[in-house]
Amino acid sequence: MRFVAETVTQGVCERHFELDVARRTVPGLLWTPAGASGPRPLVLIGHGASGSKREGYVVSLARRLVSHRGYAAASIDGPVHGDRRTDQGSVAGLAFLEFSAMWASEPTMTDLMVEDWRATLDALEGLEEVGGGPAGYWGLSDGHDPRPPLVAAEPRLAVAVLGLMGMTGPTRSRIETDAPKVTGPVLFLVQRHDELFAFATALELYEALGTDDKYLHVNPGRHGDVPVEEFEFSEQFLARRLGR
Amino acid sequence: MRFVAETVTQGVCERHFELDVARRTVPGLLWTPAGASGPRPLVLIGHGASGSKREGYVVSLARRLVSHRGYAAASIDGPVHGDRRTDQGSVAGLAFLEFSAMWASEPTMTDLMVEDWRATLDALEGLEEVGGGPAGYWGLSDGHDPRPPLVAAEPRLAVAVLGLMGMTGPTRSRIETDAPKVTGPVLFLVQRHDELFAFATALELYEALGTDDKYLHVNPGRHGDVPVEEFEFSEQFLARRLGR
Repeated sequence: MRFVAETVTQGVCERHFELDVARRTVPGLLWTPAGASGPRPLVLIGHGASGSKREGYVVSLARRLVSHRGYAAASIDGPVHGDRRTDQGSVAGLAFLEFSAMWASEPTMTDLMVEDWRATLDALEGLEEVGGGPAGYWGLSDGHDPRPPLVAAEPRLAVAVLGLMGMTGPTRSRIETDAPKVTGPVLFLVQRHDELFAFATALELYEALGTDDKYLHVNPGRHGDVPVEEFEFSEQFLARRLGR
Repeated sequence: MRFVAETVTQGVCERHFELDVARRTVPGLLWTPAGASGPRPLVLIGHGASGSKREGYVVSLARRLVSHRGYAAASIDGPVHGDRRTDQGSVAGLAFLEFSAMWASEPTMTDLMVEDWRATLDALEGLEEVGGGPAGYWGLSDGHDPRPPLVAAEPRLAVAVLGLMGMTGPTRSRIETDAPKVTGPVLFLVQRHDELFAFATALELYEALGTDDKYLHVNPGRHGDVPVEEFEFSEQFLARRLGR
């Protein structure tokens, strides 16, 4: 893990890192309290399809967790997103299209994305100021969903906030296989008028999660209309389970 | 409305009142900030079947709304509950049984309960320290459900928190008629393993609510296991819509 840039604003240190995973380079951001020392809970935050690790809600949630709770938070760019494309994601629709095309041609995409996140978690846990504190995951939406597979595959993720997804799309069979393997606490967020994931398919995925400790929040509005209350609630939900 | 007792603890004034409605007397509790003057938002809080206006969660929510928000809050005993029975509800199962029997013999029960609440709202709005501020309603569960009919019938209720109920039971047809008439914002709470209201019937009632501005929270656990987070969230939900 190489740190390539650092800024400190309002007590929050943001570091841009690069991590080599197999033969690819994964760019990410790490947020910690300025001057942090010693282990602390860590939350991995995934962006949605066509977004990036610099997405407004990603940065906002990360800074909230650092400022309010003293946590560490991190996000990485998904394949063909953010700094993993030459245009840095300036044309959001292009990333979405290329991402979709890659899924059609690359059947191991889910595994590659899970591998990126697990390598990131390994590297972050090696930092003195993050250490082996408990970890959680927060990620909504995604063109084609690696989130249930990631949470299912990674026992270090003690809690997850998922949502804006359903039992649908090209990786449906993979989600069907992995959703029952999610056994930790989950908050699952649904937008009732989601134009990308029909309400029934979202409920179906919630139902399939293999944990009894699951919480469903359905809000009115379209895919992009997640209310600010859910970001506040996400912080509480994660903090009640990660401690500190 | 007659006040028959008053206590002030930790800045919260609790007054026991009696209100004559038709030929019956409805006992209630009103909570306001000590020394309150002038209009303020009001939240009506309903207890569940076999409970009373003195139920722990009723009093706790009321005091929270008064202390944190400066609101007024009120609760009344339902038919054959609390002070409307000679044993004051000391044997909870008895109230539940008698309540259920009354529904079988008294087809206008829902209307009587709605009338009790509307008369209470009339009387409270006449108080200088409550006045015509906006009003909301909070009520979970109930043997046989007057809550959607109340919220449907009362345009002064600008927001409601409902839950632990379903499209089921002896008043199902009434709920089917009135749920679509609920047109204001609603937070609807469901316990996933509710032993009294099957998950599917709860979802059916949520679906039937006639507002697009509806929020569904499903928590793990049985009927009585509503997590403390939902009381905190209820306060926020009500306050965002009632102001102040």
